[in-house]
Amino acid sequence: MFSSFSIPSLNSTLDLSLQQKIDHKTKPLGSLGALEHIAFRLGKIQQTLTPDVSKPKMIVFAADHGVVAQGISLFPQEVTPQMVMNFLQGGAAVSVFCQQHQVPLRVVDVGVNADLVPHPLLGVRKVAYGSQDFSQHAAMTSKQVALAIQAGVEEANDAMDDGVNLLMFGEMGIGNTGVSSCMMTVLMGISAQDSAGRGTGLDASGVSHKAKIIEQSIARAEQETGQTMDCWSAQTLAEQVGGFEIIAMAGAMLQCAQRQTAFVVDGFICTVALLFAQKVSPNVVEYAIFAHQSHEKAHSRLLKHLKADAILALDLRLGEGSGAILAYPLIQSACVFLNCMASFESAGVTDTQGDKS
Amino acid sequence: MFSSFSIPSLNSTLDLSLQQKIDHKTKPLGSLGALEHIAFRLGKIQQTLTPDVSKPKMIVFAADHGVVAQGISLFPQEVTPQMVMNFLQGGAAVSVFCQQHQVPLRVVDVGVNADLVPHPLLGVRKVAYGSQDFSQHAAMTSKQVALAIQAGVEEANDAMDDGVNLLMFGEMGIGNTGVSSCMMTVLMGISAQDSAGRGTGLDASGVSHKAKIIEQSIARAEQETGQTMDCWSAQTLAEQVGGFEIIAMAGAMLQCAQRQTAFVVDGFICTVALLFAQKVSPNVVEYAIFAHQSHEKAHSRLLKHLKADAILALDLRLGEGSGAILAYPLIQSACVFLNCMASFESAGVTDTQGDKS
Repeated sequence: MFSSFSIPSLNSTLDLSLQQKIDHKTKPLGSLGALEHIAFRLGKIQQTLTPDVSKPKMIVFAADHGVVAQGISLFPQEVTPQMVMNFLQGGAAVSVFCQQHQVPLRVVDVGVNADLVPHPLLGVRKVAYGSQDFSQHAAMTSKQVALAIQAGVEEANDAMDDGVNLLMFGEMGIGNTGVSSCMMTVLMGISAQDSAGRGTGLDASGVSHKAKIIEQSIARAEQETGQTMDCWSAQTLAEQVGGFEIIAMAGAMLQCAQRQTAFVVDGFICTVALLFAQKVSPNVVEYAIFAHQSHEKAHSRLLKHLKADAILALDLRLGEGSGAILAYPLIQSACVFLNCMASFESAGVTDTQGDKS
Repeated sequence: MFSSFSIPSLNSTLDLSLQQKIDHKTKPLGSLGALEHIAFRLGKIQQTLTPDVSKPKMIVFAADHGVVAQGISLFPQEVTPQMVMNFLQGGAAVSVFCQQHQVPLRVVDVGVNADLVPHPLLGVRKVAYGSQDFSQHAAMTSKQVALAIQAGVEEANDAMDDGVNLLMFGEMGIGNTGVSSCMMTVLMGISAQDSAGRGTGLDASGVSHKAKIIEQSIARAEQETGQTMDCWSAQTLAEQVGGFEIIAMAGAMLQCAQRQTAFVVDGFICTVALLFAQKVSPNVVEYAIFAHQSHEKAHSRLLKHLKADAILALDLRLGEGSGAILAYPLIQSACVFLNCMASFESAGVTDTQGDKS
């Protein structure tokens, strides 16, 4: 499954023309700051001087995690299906922000530990009723990894086939901040103390307990695979300590990049999904727009590792794709300025800055 | 004129109810970060549990500055009327972002050094054809200060009479970053080196020259008034080193606060206008929403002085109100979450966080 991705690095043919177009707009050079970088990046991804994100879509992947049996989250597992229903009924943060920006929302069950009532916005691609408790056993089978990836790939394909030109991803799954911390520990070769954070609101002893469970789980998996974690393939990592929604998001990101479509990375958990996708195919990162730097402790380290500048820093720590949808109007603004602002020439405004591009 | 403002401190009656409403939404406590603070602030300003910013308006005040004769800006003065025309014709950054968010834009000439062609979006409240070169003489007369304040007050009143519930302010005026630095120097009692920055793109020697002009101007004014700058009244400050669009913005902000209406502060120049307004009536600051931290060096110091958390930090340094309009969808999102998200009770989601409010 993983070998089917071959993502090219971005083409630089338009770089000079894009920069010139940006620099001739009626504004001091560079004065739109981060928006200029986003406009440049989108133009480069879409290979056009008129990038377009007018057909966005938010896909939230939801799943449960057996490891919550170890007490790593403030909320009980029953909250995963309850929140999925809340998404569908329009009451969650991601729902109301998607409504605000008229962005279609789809929720995909890739492993919720409950049978969900059918709903027009719900996609059912359930791989299992939650992953196994990875402190005790592998989280999932090899076949389940493939099914989770496939769920993400197919969802991304369906959207892009429908003309969607900007994919935003979110996630729901009680315990998935801990699962992400565990995956980050392996992917970056750092300690669990450095990757574990408060999640939905743990106190210091809760965070410390979570780090201990992560350490135990990795030790268990190293013993079971007969390999230290730095030797694991993406496949092994996913089987041992993955989460269905995280793997599915990675699959969706990889497929977006494969088809040269930009996607928006939400907070900590989404960024870990991208880190995993990067292990599969490094160039995937070039197609990512980073929505925000979250309050979750390890996120800033992760963004730094990916050399990523996030658009927002609002101390969000909600997940669901809420940060991605909040950043959407600013991504749109990047296209709006590039496509709609006058140039010095067209507006008859004196330009004394010289042509520095 | 200044004595006519008596702005009350915000009423705390609803604080507990607002916090409880925020905390019962289906999300981890505090997880919407800065949006929660904005929602709280708006509820407190509007004295309601359902704040509303659905009728916004952007007013850009434009004027020229005699002190540009001293070579403190990269662009020539002719750019002020050229950019005003660009605003009106829809080609400037603030124009395209206002169009994106369907926010009505109005441009008010309070002192442009040219006669502008009439336009439906243009308000003409010209106090003079630019201020005097304040390195040589007082910038304006006592009567001109009053007229500039009045222009802002009347513009704010017109908007609020029309039902506008969120005012955003922007400015245009070649040289006004330097004028703002000068005003900041006086208002905060700091050195010109600490308040002067790159503006639209000066290099280090340009910034150093600007600081020198500011120092000379203040020395000239101290001699002329027979008072050191720390003894100046708001009136004296405005007369000696003010700018028409900055004083007008301050008037508009004061009038918003007087009528308990929230307003959005754009970048460095707008924040200096607020600092000036604060000298007139300290409580005005409580009605301000800070859109962004700009790239202009002294802005972060100024925001810190005002204990302000800005929504965005995109390295913008454009002015025009561009940062304010970019922050607008996030201010709207603060209302959207407070008004539209489900509570744990209404959505039937298990809440294990306890009632911490």
